[in-house]
Amino acid sequence: MTKLWDKGIGVNQQIESFTVGNDHVIDQELVYYDCIASKAHVSVLEQAGLVSSEESEELKTELNAIIQLHSKGAFPITREQEDCHTAIEEHLTKKLGDLGQKIHTARSRNDQVLTALRLYYRDKLQQIDTLRNQFMESIDHFVGSYGEIPYPGYTHMQKAMPSSFGLWGGAFIESMRDNGILLAAVSEIIDQSPLGTAAGYGVPLDIDRNVSAQELDFPRVQENPIYAQQSRGKFESLLIHLLSQISADLNKLASDLILFNMTEFGFIDLPEEFCTGSSIMPQKKNPDVLELMRAKHHVIKSLEYQISSMTSNLISGYNRDLQLTKESVMKALAITIECLEISVLLFKELKVNEDQCRKAMSKELFATAEAYELVKQGVPFREAYQQVAKGFTKGS
Amino acid sequence: MTKLWDKGIGVNQQIESFTVGNDHVIDQELVYYDCIASKAHVSVLEQAGLVSSEESEELKTELNAIIQLHSKGAFPITREQEDCHTAIEEHLTKKLGDLGQKIHTARSRNDQVLTALRLYYRDKLQQIDTLRNQFMESIDHFVGSYGEIPYPGYTHMQKAMPSSFGLWGGAFIESMRDNGILLAAVSEIIDQSPLGTAAGYGVPLDIDRNVSAQELDFPRVQENPIYAQQSRGKFESLLIHLLSQISADLNKLASDLILFNMTEFGFIDLPEEFCTGSSIMPQKKNPDVLELMRAKHHVIKSLEYQISSMTSNLISGYNRDLQLTKESVMKALAITIECLEISVLLFKELKVNEDQCRKAMSKELFATAEAYELVKQGVPFREAYQQVAKGFTKGS
Amino acid sequence: MTKLWDKGIGVNQQIESFTVGNDHVIDQELVYYDCIASKAHVSVLEQAGLVSSEESEELKTELNAIIQLHSKGAFPITREQEDCHTAIEEHLTKKLGDLGQKIHTARSRNDQVLTALRLYYRDKLQQIDTLRNQFMESIDHFVGSYGEIPYPGYTHMQKAMPSSFGLWGGAFIESMRDNGILLAAVSEIIDQSPLGTAAGYGVPLDIDRNVSAQELDFPRVQENPIYAQQSRGKFESLLIHLLSQISADLNKLASDLILFNMTEFGFIDLPEEFCTGSSIMPQKKNPDVLELMRAKHHVIKSLEYQISSMTSNLISGYNRDLQLTKESVMKALAITIECLEISVLLFKELKVNEDQCRKAMSKELFATAEAYELVKQGVPFREAYQQVAKGFTKGS
Amino acid sequence: MTKLWDKGIGVNQQIESFTVGNDHVIDQELVYYDCIASKAHVSVLEQAGLVSSEESEELKTELNAIIQLHSKGAFPITREQEDCHTAIEEHLTKKLGDLGQKIHTARSRNDQVLTALRLYYRDKLQQIDTLRNQFMESIDHFVGSYGEIPYPGYTHMQKAMPSSFGLWGGAFIESMRDNGILLAAVSEIIDQSPLGTAAGYGVPLDIDRNVSAQELDFPRVQENPIYAQQSRGKFESLLIHLLSQISADLNKLASDLILFNMTEFGFIDLPEEFCTGSSIMPQKKNPDVLELMRAKHHVIKSLEYQISSMTSNLISGYNRDLQLTKESVMKALAITIECLEISVLLFKELKVNEDQCRKAMSKELFATAEAYELVKQGVPFREAYQQVAKGFTKGS
Repeated sequence: MTKLWDKGIGVNQQIESFTVGNDHVIDQELVYYDCIASKAHVSVLEQAGLVSSEESEELKTELNAIIQLHSKGAFPITREQEDCHTAIEEHLTKKLGDLGQKIHTARSRNDQVLTALRLYYRDKLQQIDTLRNQFMESIDHFVGSYGEIPYPGYTHMQKAMPSSFGLWGGAFIESMRDNGILLAAVSEIIDQSPLGTAAGYGVPLDIDRNVSAQELDFPRVQENPIYAQQSRGKFESLLIHLLSQISADLNKLASDLILFNMTEFGFIDLPEEFCTGSSIMPQKKNPDVLELMRAKHHVIKSLEYQISSMTSNLISGYNRDLQLTKESVMKALAITIECLEISVLLFKELKVNEDQCRKAMSKELFATAEAYELVKQGVPFREAYQQVAKGFTKGS
Repeated sequence: MTKLWDKGIGVNQQIESFTVGNDHVIDQELVYYDCIASKAHVSVLEQAGLVSSEESEELKTELNAIIQLHSKGAFPITREQEDCHTAIEEHLTKKLGDLGQKIHTARSRNDQVLTALRLYYRDKLQQIDTLRNQFMESIDHFVGSYGEIPYPGYTHMQKAMPSSFGLWGGAFIESMRDNGILLAAVSEIIDQSPLGTAAGYGVPLDIDRNVSAQELDFPRVQENPIYAQQSRGKFESLLIHLLSQISADLNKLASDLILFNMTEFGFIDLPEEFCTGSSIMPQKKNPDVLELMRAKHHVIKSLEYQISSMTSNLISGYNRDLQLTKESVMKALAITIECLEISVLLFKELKVNEDQCRKAMSKELFATAEAYELVKQGVPFREAYQQVAKGFTKGS
Repeated sequence: MTKLWDKGIGVNQQIESFTVGNDHVIDQELVYYDCIASKAHVSVLEQAGLVSSEESEELKTELNAIIQLHSKGAFPITREQEDCHTAIEEHLTKKLGDLGQKIHTARSRNDQVLTALRLYYRDKLQQIDTLRNQFMESIDHFVGSYGEIPYPGYTHMQKAMPSSFGLWGGAFIESMRDNGILLAAVSEIIDQSPLGTAAGYGVPLDIDRNVSAQELDFPRVQENPIYAQQSRGKFESLLIHLLSQISADLNKLASDLILFNMTEFGFIDLPEEFCTGSSIMPQKKNPDVLELMRAKHHVIKSLEYQISSMTSNLISGYNRDLQLTKESVMKALAITIECLEISVLLFKELKVNEDQCRKAMSKELFATAEAYELVKQGVPFREAYQQVAKGFTKGS
Repeated sequence: MTKLWDKGIGVNQQIESFTVGNDHVIDQELVYYDCIASKAHVSVLEQAGLVSSEESEELKTELNAIIQLHSKGAFPITREQEDCHTAIEEHLTKKLGDLGQKIHTARSRNDQVLTALRLYYRDKLQQIDTLRNQFMESIDHFVGSYGEIPYPGYTHMQKAMPSSFGLWGGAFIESMRDNGILLAAVSEIIDQSPLGTAAGYGVPLDIDRNVSAQELDFPRVQENPIYAQQSRGKFESLLIHLLSQISADLNKLASDLILFNMTEFGFIDLPEEFCTGSSIMPQKKNPDVLELMRAKHHVIKSLEYQISSMTSNLISGYNRDLQLTKESVMKALAITIECLEISVLLFKELKVNEDQCRKAMSKELFATAEAYELVKQGVPFREAYQQVAKGFTKGS
């Protein structure tokens, strides 16, 4: 046996390489999830009388064995197998004979992929949520050390009014807290069981989809099988949008720190072990890590856009185009996780250069306060504004 | 008086036209919201003792007068005034003299714009939520009439398994229901009061921001003033992403119907008054309305991307770039609303052509069911599959 | 008569408003081009014997009359007419009776739109090419005044090596020169005549498409009618990509100047009449014009992406989706032209602050030169680099 | 020695992993190009008297040895080395001692990377140009076999007028020919030598950049060193745009063929060895290869957008963000090449099903011809149109 759909005709080799792509590589990420989903599916089959309880036991034992193998890096997927789903069914058939051939009853690779991905997304979202909390704590700790230090607040990249590192750090904490609201909603939407929707039109067999949903801790069943397929692309775009909200915050964080790190500002001190040098200029101490964090936001955003564009203008029902979304989501998840980890690390070491900050607190930052002093003395604001403004126009 | 920040220097005319853009036109949408936000701000000033209760009364009366004028289309905004905020302050100063000059105390145009926009977004989100419900009802009604009719379910744009218009319509209902979860989260995130954050660094005056937040029905205050500015672009991107989830559903809906409407399928009947013709081909009855609905999803998505890209790689604090997001969000909102309205209208008239649908239910759609029959007789699924497959390969 | 394809059935009003959009407004830009294209088409009809030479004369005279009316702003297009093409045919029929009804022989609105747009694109591209040259000249003039002044060259936003405003300005000149190569190629690709391809499948009449191509100065005929339709979207995406190459340069230009304009640098002096103020902070002098130039690049880029995404995943042949590309291209062209004009204006007034620049030329900028001095004395470069680097590490 | 810029401080391991990314893997693609560029650079150094002719000989011999090793897959790049540039310099230093330390004189890694990439782009563009020609030939061959067969031309996905496979194939040939004009322009723009611009501000040494430009067959020198850096991102965006013009054509090609392959049309026959099956439905023969070709256009387009967005809003001079463009361009090039190869293969096997095509040539396709018959009899076109239209409205 090679592929699940193989009927013995053979596929042109170049075509095969084109269609399989690197699924057999990236699917290593999904082996565990497909095994636990397959175990839940076996429970469904058992409950429907399509396998006996002994058969169920045997299948689950063998699926556990695959999980064990995989955890030791000993469950390879070959290009001929195409993906983890074929590799797993092939393994079962090799070990259990006819019984292995029964596991695909009442499911399609379509709902199998959907289920494995959702379980995988759920785990990754939990990991991101944990990192989100660590991020807020690490800034909180930074604010504890440096929060009182003032620095110039900018608008239009011009000195505007006094700010402080407490205010600055607090902005990122509040934003990341709001990301938590979005994360919860995204989780709620994604966390529904597609298992049993088969190829998008259900199966003409009497099965109870609640059995697998409960075993896999899905709070609800995704009832409509066409919708299960339509949500491929929809959920991925939603998920990456969430990631892009996080990476947009990190993009701004990095943009601020790169500026503050310029010698013309000198507000912060990046530890030397975070910096890299130049191959030609001996003096350089470059904030590459911040520049890459800034840049990676665009990778994530482009992946959102890619998935959205790729899955539009298509009719409902599975189209192979959807398969390309898998690698893109995985990439976006990995980038977000790595960037959050780096951020947490960064705030443990980041120092504020108080002297430089205080030196930068020049007169114009207090012009608004000056106007408000006049307001307190009864001058209408707009008049006070004009009065103070005179002190800042040329020649005066 | 011309602009809020005018100090009597004068701006190059071409530069003025470039910077003002068409804010004076689109700001007509915001006059009402800026007036009610300004009234809430007056309450803050009164509570802080910065205006007397008589002054407060006068200001609110005049703001109500502007609302009245505006509702009759009689509150023009000139290019010289730049935006509704200047037009309103100018009107107050003209009517109330010195008192008008007091209203801008303890706020900046930055938080003023943010507040007006959030109130505007809230109204639009409610309108969209209502349309979302109407959309689900209209499909529900359609399913009531045609739900039982079978048609071929497709995967890879190839006949796959039997579907029905009940299944098809139900997919869009479920998807739109999930959009409701996202809509609620987006509302929760956006619905916080930025009023009093001024230019992004607060004001050196003792004011109670809860007063205006409560008067404007904001469930919470957006505490951090830097975050208030950072959320420009962030919230807009989030909001448009929500809209794009809706428009993606409509894109799929339209894609399906355009296909079903081809004579080669003939599954549906578009009413003639929904169709347009050709300038050269006398026979044509084109589904332009569906094609445009399909296309407009891309306009919305590109606006999301525009805002995301435009507001990245920038340091925190207000940058004028953010101003360009206003028109884009307004456009995305208008398109979404119009497309939902058209969809509701469509489902009132859409008919299913039962004869054509039944004719299309050819043998291959039942191949899976055939395999399952063998399964019920005890044949392992993969073997059953291979057995049935033989009947569909060439030459057999 | 209302629309070209009207057969007396009537269209739902809401649907009409949805499908027409604002074509009747933006088509004012195309009236002239459609008239000259129609005149060329009349020559084709005359040459094919489908209208007499008298009829040809009459039609052309009336088309010239429309051009006259339009130049005085006296050729309105109503929403009922939908677009300029209907308005023009209706005008002809009103004036010339039966003869007006002949003009649409051997063409479709599809090739009519394509032709008018290409003529319009050609004019706009010429305008942009002129501005491109003015842009280079204005920088050249700026370099003539300030080119010798040194300022710190940055990499990673860290002081790297000495630069000068001559070097800086020269970079934008060279880039804009390369844009000229692209502009020429885009013009060459676009500048082919689609007139006579009708709805994308030609016409079953014997006409000579060279006649109109020559009259309209198209260097070649776009032979394949299906390709004529496919190039809708393709050419637009190409055209906007060219614009985005220009706007990307302006984005970088603006990014540089906004930084150089910060008080922490003070390298340049923006004239006060180019700046705007703040509604709250009396001291502010903001570079809004530069920020907007920076931002508008993203509008252009998003329009490229919109068109690309909108026109993909569609089968060949005209689809109504393509119609939405019209407004987007017009917008991208208008933005590019305005931004180039503003840039030219800017460089006439932009001043370099020599004192501030020289003050910024600190020691580390010469570290590489120092290493090269050692190289000249025979030290291998990597060793010289390490030697100089020691002087820049902490504690030394 | 580890990295070119290493000064013995050590970098945090997690940070190192983050910043290096997978450059050490993808740089295998660049080893050859960096070696030949380095040889040309050695000629520059020799001509400037910075290395002797013996030293030049030794360096070039060793660089040739690296090329040999690399061609056998025996030139590994470690993560510690970060990229091919470090690996090569390290190899030279290990083999040649002090002499190896001289090679980086008068260049920076910045211009070294730029040069290697441009040489790589040039090779890939030539490969794509060859495939572009093969693509046109393969369609030409297909048209030779099936060009005369008529099929219904569609507009709005409705039967419009008669088309033929000759017309259809010809459209893709003409489009690919126009892509050739763009390809030539892109090549002309990219094909300029950046070698010697160092880190973007030149080198304070007297070197002749023409020497290396000529040795590397660059038709011109990119004079301005700041522009050399600015063109990172600019050229990549341009290059990917070209690729996206090609992939957009393939997207349309695939979209057409997927539709024509539906049983409802049956216009074409995809060879079985090009198709894949379903894991659940025994009858399926899916056109995955076409669906993936359609989808991959979106990957390419998103990469263009990613690079554009990532490199905007940044000041001039090298920023590390630019490094991320490398992998994206490589990916876009690889996809384009693979898709073109698959297309060529496809047209060798693609068959047209003449019977099905002729059956689909129904009456409405000839309505326009019918109207033209009336025109030939003297009826004005619009009147003829109305007359024919009556035969196609409901009830008639």
